[in-house]
Amino acid sequence: MTDAPAPAPVQAGTDRAACLARDAADPLAACRQAFALPPDLIYLDGNSLGPLPHAAAARVADTVAREWGEGLIRSWNDAGWIDLPARVGDRIARLIGARPGSVMAGDSTSINLFKALNAALGLPGPAGGRRTILSDTGNFPTDLYVAQGICAASGGRLRLRTVAQEDLAAAIDGDTAIVMATHVNFRTGWMHDMTAVTEAARAAGAAMVWDLAHSAGAVPLDLAASGAEFAVGCGYKYLNGGPGAPGFIHVRPDLQDRVAPALCGWMGHAAPFDFAPAFVPAQGVRRQQVGTPPILSLAALDAALEIWREVDMAAVRCKSLALADLFIALVERDCAGFGLRLATPRQHDRRGSQISFACGPDLAGGYPVMQALIAAGVIGDFRAPDLLRFGFTPLYLRFVDVFDAADRLHRILAERRWDNPQFHARAAVT
Amino acid sequence: MTDAPAPAPVQAGTDRAACLARDAADPLAACRQAFALPPDLIYLDGNSLGPLPHAAAARVADTVAREWGEGLIRSWNDAGWIDLPARVGDRIARLIGARPGSVMAGDSTSINLFKALNAALGLPGPAGGRRTILSDTGNFPTDLYVAQGICAASGGRLRLRTVAQEDLAAAIDGDTAIVMATHVNFRTGWMHDMTAVTEAARAAGAAMVWDLAHSAGAVPLDLAASGAEFAVGCGYKYLNGGPGAPGFIHVRPDLQDRVAPALCGWMGHAAPFDFAPAFVPAQGVRRQQVGTPPILSLAALDAALEIWREVDMAAVRCKSLALADLFIALVERDCAGFGLRLATPRQHDRRGSQISFACGPDLAGGYPVMQALIAAGVIGDFRAPDLLRFGFTPLYLRFVDVFDAADRLHRILAERRWDNPQFHARAAVT
Repeated sequence: MTDAPAPAPVQAGTDRAACLARDAADPLAACRQAFALPPDLIYLDGNSLGPLPHAAAARVADTVAREWGEGLIRSWNDAGWIDLPARVGDRIARLIGARPGSVMAGDSTSINLFKALNAALGLPGPAGGRRTILSDTGNFPTDLYVAQGICAASGGRLRLRTVAQEDLAAAIDGDTAIVMATHVNFRTGWMHDMTAVTEAARAAGAAMVWDLAHSAGAVPLDLAASGAEFAVGCGYKYLNGGPGAPGFIHVRPDLQDRVAPALCGWMGHAAPFDFAPAFVPAQGVRRQQVGTPPILSLAALDAALEIWREVDMAAVRCKSLALADLFIALVERDCAGFGLRLATPRQHDRRGSQISFACGPDLAGGYPVMQALIAAGVIGDFRAPDLLRFGFTPLYLRFVDVFDAADRLHRILAERRWDNPQFHARAAVT
Repeated sequence: MTDAPAPAPVQAGTDRAACLARDAADPLAACRQAFALPPDLIYLDGNSLGPLPHAAAARVADTVAREWGEGLIRSWNDAGWIDLPARVGDRIARLIGARPGSVMAGDSTSINLFKALNAALGLPGPAGGRRTILSDTGNFPTDLYVAQGICAASGGRLRLRTVAQEDLAAAIDGDTAIVMATHVNFRTGWMHDMTAVTEAARAAGAAMVWDLAHSAGAVPLDLAASGAEFAVGCGYKYLNGGPGAPGFIHVRPDLQDRVAPALCGWMGHAAPFDFAPAFVPAQGVRRQQVGTPPILSLAALDAALEIWREVDMAAVRCKSLALADLFIALVERDCAGFGLRLATPRQHDRRGSQISFACGPDLAGGYPVMQALIAAGVIGDFRAPDLLRFGFTPLYLRFVDVFDAADRLHRILAERRWDNPQFHARAAVT
């Protein structure tokens, strides 16, 4: 999966003092204060669950005590709960380069993908007898499951075809109804060329559905310029919206009123509080709403997104790559001899904001290495069969954190501290 | 909609002192302390959004600060987030008379209904060429919309037919694939005979899908005894789970492994953390899970359900009927002359835990009457075209509250205080 076999040369400025100096000059350094980070912990798993923003804690407490507790049912109007999914959607739209009014927050990413795929199937090209939903083997499994469910329900009319991620654009053909891809690979951080894949889909008359779960808040995106018909994404990773935060759906503005929602519920009705017997879809992306949204979880996400208002995504990307490059350099300098091999592209435009190292057979596959690292205060995660996965999140990570994380990993390997029965027991969630 | 035209005689013990005496003797009186109720407010809208339980506020604060803030990603294991939907489901199962392991919490009621209807369509009877989803005109609109969406997607194979609620059982025939009904009518409180309707569906070879949104926590239920194949319901009404709290789905135990989920997502996979490319449904009701559940909202619901652990549903029902009967008697004694007419069955076994009065033309349809009542500190709600709707929730309502609410309603009518322009302006959410 790497595009360059030779290890990177050790960078200048990789001692601890140099890292502290880089932190002192970091234009994003102040963002760290927005988060409630446990002391003595280095969190490299913000790509899986972002940490708690102080503002989210305060907002949820206010939503519970004042809006729910005191306002009760009146808060649907007085606290604006009814418009919260659209307001949160607009905050996300700004982060992913989508137009205002083109994103709706609510429901899980999986359910939003179900909506997007069904909407795509209703467009003229896909509806015209094409049989294939095309994806890649690197897609997040739930995306493949959602598509498999739709294919099974089609009674044989549709099929899911997966190819290697680098072959995706070339595999699009006249039978392709939908190209469905996760922009950044959840295991390796490998990143699709959004413009090229979307253009290949368009040229072949297929609809494009992007899953931005590992890119929203991680890399600069210009979804509007890509021309993609649909996108979905996740609120609890780089957007820091809290465990199980609602996901989102993007529908290209010109298509919003042309697609019939697959999941018809009262919040997507043109006039929900008329309680009319027949479904009439709302105008715009609002018709993609279904049931009553989980306000407490949405409030946390809304507050977490507030942090991004003043943040320049170009600065985020610049620091993300610098943090990851530093980590690669340190690990390759100190740990390569123990059997770690970079599984993420070195090339900047081919990766997102996470780095994975594959573990050789001498490291028992790598699972106990990650457990030992977590026990040493550095939280990353393990993805089967052999990947140590690390997320680099510029809003709250410092260069010195990266230095210390690589240093602790090195000690664990050098002292074989992972080779302890306590680190081999598998948990339910990995 | 009423089953007895004559007004009820005024009950003994309906003066304020008698109400205070009844409260002093109420075996459920202590439950009120579990709720954060604003002072000087009488809340008769718990059938729409239940009030804040103190335990929910504490639990959400802990989930945010400790589980998310300190535990971070580890809380999926350490705080048991991964099993929270099933644990909440089991708490709900107890309240609706379902077996442990037959209810899964998560997603909105609308989405759970989509799952249930699709699962029902896969059963041998419904799958055998039957074309009709049968419901009643009193069903909550989102239920009709979900069914309309499924019918539209079937390309003409399925149709939704609605009949008057009292004609539902008689309308079931050999073309009925599914009988879909909300147990308690959201407008009037009219309640279906669950046993009789379910039995009629069974006898005709149709599957039964109940929506318990207005019955779970409101009336005693014995879903297992009814034999109904599926049920769904809502977490934010009588269960007090907070705004937009997750809903739930019940699948009869013998069917759980026979129905293929319509929404296939990773949380419904047999081994989600294997990240395998092919969907293999989990055993049991877990396969009805889809994406990552909204943990903050689920935690609030879980804490709110804790209150019910020691509560006897028979006592709840007894007090609910007594509160409602008192309200009917007081309103009919004092307010009938102003044009209010009971729209809820008087008969106990034909109503849930809410009461509606229809307003005559002299009251401008009733909307301003409800707004004036809310301004006077009594929160009910208005349902078009002319209904004043009041929920009676025995965990936190007192007999004296009912007395005072009826008294304030009487004054508003007697003094025509509703006839003020400020009470005519319609809000977005009614």
